Amino acid sequence: MENFNFNVSTDIRFGKDRLDELPSVLNQFGKNVLLVYGGGSIKRSGLYEKIKTLLKENGLKMFELGGVDPNPKIESVREGVMLCKYHKIDVILAVGGGSVIDCSKVISGAVFYEGDPWEMVLSRRYEGPTIPLVTILTLATTGTEMNRGAVISDLNAKQKLGIHGTNFLPKVSFLDPSLTFSVSKYQTLAGSADILSHLMEQYFNLTPGTEVQDSIAEGLMKTVIQCMPVALHEPTHYDARANLMWASTLALNGLVGSGRKGAWSCHAMEHELSAFYDITHGIGLAILTPRWLDYILNEQTLPKIERFARNVWQIQEPDSMKAAKMGIQALYDFFEENGVPMTLPEVGIPDDRDFAAMAQQAIDHSSLLTDAFEVLGVKDVVAIYQACLTKSKFI
Amino acid sequence: MENFNFNVSTDIRFGKDRLDELPSVLNQFGKNVLLVYGGGSIKRSGLYEKIKTLLKENGLKMFELGGVDPNPKIESVREGVMLCKYHKIDVILAVGGGSVIDCSKVISGAVFYEGDPWEMVLSRRYEGPTIPLVTILTLATTGTEMNRGAVISDLNAKQKLGIHGTNFLPKVSFLDPSLTFSVSKYQTLAGSADILSHLMEQYFNLTPGTEVQDSIAEGLMKTVIQCMPVALHEPTHYDARANLMWASTLALNGLVGSGRKGAWSCHAMEHELSAFYDITHGIGLAILTPRWLDYILNEQTLPKIERFARNVWQIQEPDSMKAAKMGIQALYDFFEENGVPMTLPEVGIPDDRDFAAMAQQAIDHSSLLTDAFEVLGVKDVVAIYQACLTKSKFI
Repeated sequence: MENFNFNVSTDIRFGKDRLDELPSVLNQFGKNVLLVYGGGSIKRSGLYEKIKTLLKENGLKMFELGGVDPNPKIESVREGVMLCKYHKIDVILAVGGGSVIDCSKVISGAVFYEGDPWEMVLSRRYEGPTIPLVTILTLATTGTEMNRGAVISDLNAKQKLGIHGTNFLPKVSFLDPSLTFSVSKYQTLAGSADILSHLMEQYFNLTPGTEVQDSIAEGLMKTVIQCMPVALHEPTHYDARANLMWASTLALNGLVGSGRKGAWSCHAMEHELSAFYDITHGIGLAILTPRWLDYILNEQTLPKIERFARNVWQIQEPDSMKAAKMGIQALYDFFEENGVPMTLPEVGIPDDRDFAAMAQQAIDHSSLLTDAFEVLGVKDVVAIYQACLTKSKFI
Repeated sequence: MENFNFNVSTDIRFGKDRLDELPSVLNQFGKNVLLVYGGGSIKRSGLYEKIKTLLKENGLKMFELGGVDPNPKIESVREGVMLCKYHKIDVILAVGGGSVIDCSKVISGAVFYEGDPWEMVLSRRYEGPTIPLVTILTLATTGTEMNRGAVISDLNAKQKLGIHGTNFLPKVSFLDPSLTFSVSKYQTLAGSADILSHLMEQYFNLTPGTEVQDSIAEGLMKTVIQCMPVALHEPTHYDARANLMWASTLALNGLVGSGRKGAWSCHAMEHELSAFYDITHGIGLAILTPRWLDYILNEQTLPKIERFARNVWQIQEPDSMKAAKMGIQALYDFFEENGVPMTLPEVGIPDDRDFAAMAQQAIDHSSLLTDAFEVLGVKDVVAIYQACLTKSKFI
């Protein structure tokens, strides 16, 4: 195990019927609140009106930045920065999924950044001050509600980049599982695939002696595998939604990733799919991951992939290589049986015309070439993309 | 899953060779440091001299409270409070295991408490201010380095009581696994048994829908079961010590306990063994737990005990009741094979003369009678104590 810091001070308010706590939470930071949200589902659900009324009744002034897209765009950040400066915003209230919260994080720092926000994103780290951020999560996916990362896209430049900020960590996050009852099947699938991918990206790693982290990762993977089908079948199943939500948060708050290092492989490859074609992030990950595992399966990676097969998928097959392949197949089948479109053409990437350019960017924007679980070059990434064009069978 | 708050802001500095960070950590709180430690092992190991030199070189003034006992006594708290007031202490530096840290927590609050510190402990909660606390952990056991609880004994009153304080949470905790290389076999056993017990106390619970918490608990239990024998056999095995240490911290920082409620059964019963006979806490827990599980095994408790047998001990036996019993036996055998004295006479409790009084106190000081995994009365507790007088066989 490597040395690490773990310092995750977000005040989590987990559970239903806790909105009454919001005014006092916001009040500790000031009176001027910037509400950031997405496509308007919070208006349809009535959450927007509830928040507006609550804030008004408690003497808080609410300003708004709506319309933040999935794969949030740098244009939204620029708009948010202007609003923060003009209205002297004291606290940002992000209500939504990962996109809304990520956009809010970058706004919170960019307000104090001298150059254009995209320059800040290009630098990949921000150590300066931020406007305090409070979140109300409406989608179990990215874990951004309890970490220091954010992902922002510039579609003009065909770039989707992660940035970390010491002070991007939300001060308070409200996690109400019942707010995810209305999440569509497709978004539940995509969100769950994203959680699983976060866990696998950290789990498939070469640092030895990370038993705590690995066993937590396996436990959270099993939780998602158990609860996702329940939530798909019965969208208002509170405990299924609650476990998916809490798993999503814990999957990426440092618990699983601390004490080891190494590149994330599928995210590096998927970010280019989203940057070029604006596809749903989690679905892209579900498509890529089994093909990636199959492509990198070799003597060095076998022990961990076999362990994954046995501990997560309860594969009993005695032969190690065969067991590993059965684990990869089980992952693929899990996604397919639950309705994930498992080829690129199904999500609007018709052929391989952009694979070389995307692979090059995947390499340029990551350390796939140097410190991945299994290092990958452009040729390898193209081969993995290629395997995603048609249905796969691994055994 | 029940609603919960999770807000654990302790800044964890995990790993070896990080003592150089100590002066700047302390400096943010002030110049006057009260060093709290135990029986002098930190003097023998050289850690005491290193800290003294570091603090002096960095202009910090060090005062001392040494000799804090295992099962820390209220007398040490009173002494610490006097020292804090007299020397205008700005920050407490606790260097040791759970006893030293727990004692320091209670001191940190009792300084601001108007009455005698034991009155504060008797009230079981402290919501007032505290002196900031920094810890250097030298024993993987209680998890106190990242939570808000403390346990203090008054041997005159034969009482050992837990107290929670909102501000008892350490500000910074240094977790250096190599500081546990010198921990004796017996203390490694006791510490590991304590970690396992914390996990089991939270895991054996009736709240439904806590898949995240249960799967994390199972993962941490498996980690301890895997790493404890390695650390016993090779005390300087870094990764074994690192995983035991990180597991001990995560076992009791809210990850496993959040979202459910209910009494801790074995701790309630063990606290009286320690209060009456001053035995080692973890060993008392190891002795009690299998007998408790066997005593409460019934139709209602079967599903969880069976799950424990299958997921933690890989029991394949198809019959549920038999599998559950095999799990209890596996737990007992694990302790016994690794050298835990598994009967009360072996640890200096010769017979049942105090069982009735201890059982009565266990009931008085807990909610065993109302909200345990399986509710227990005085008669039940006596029966469980009784089963601990001789070796056991569960199948």
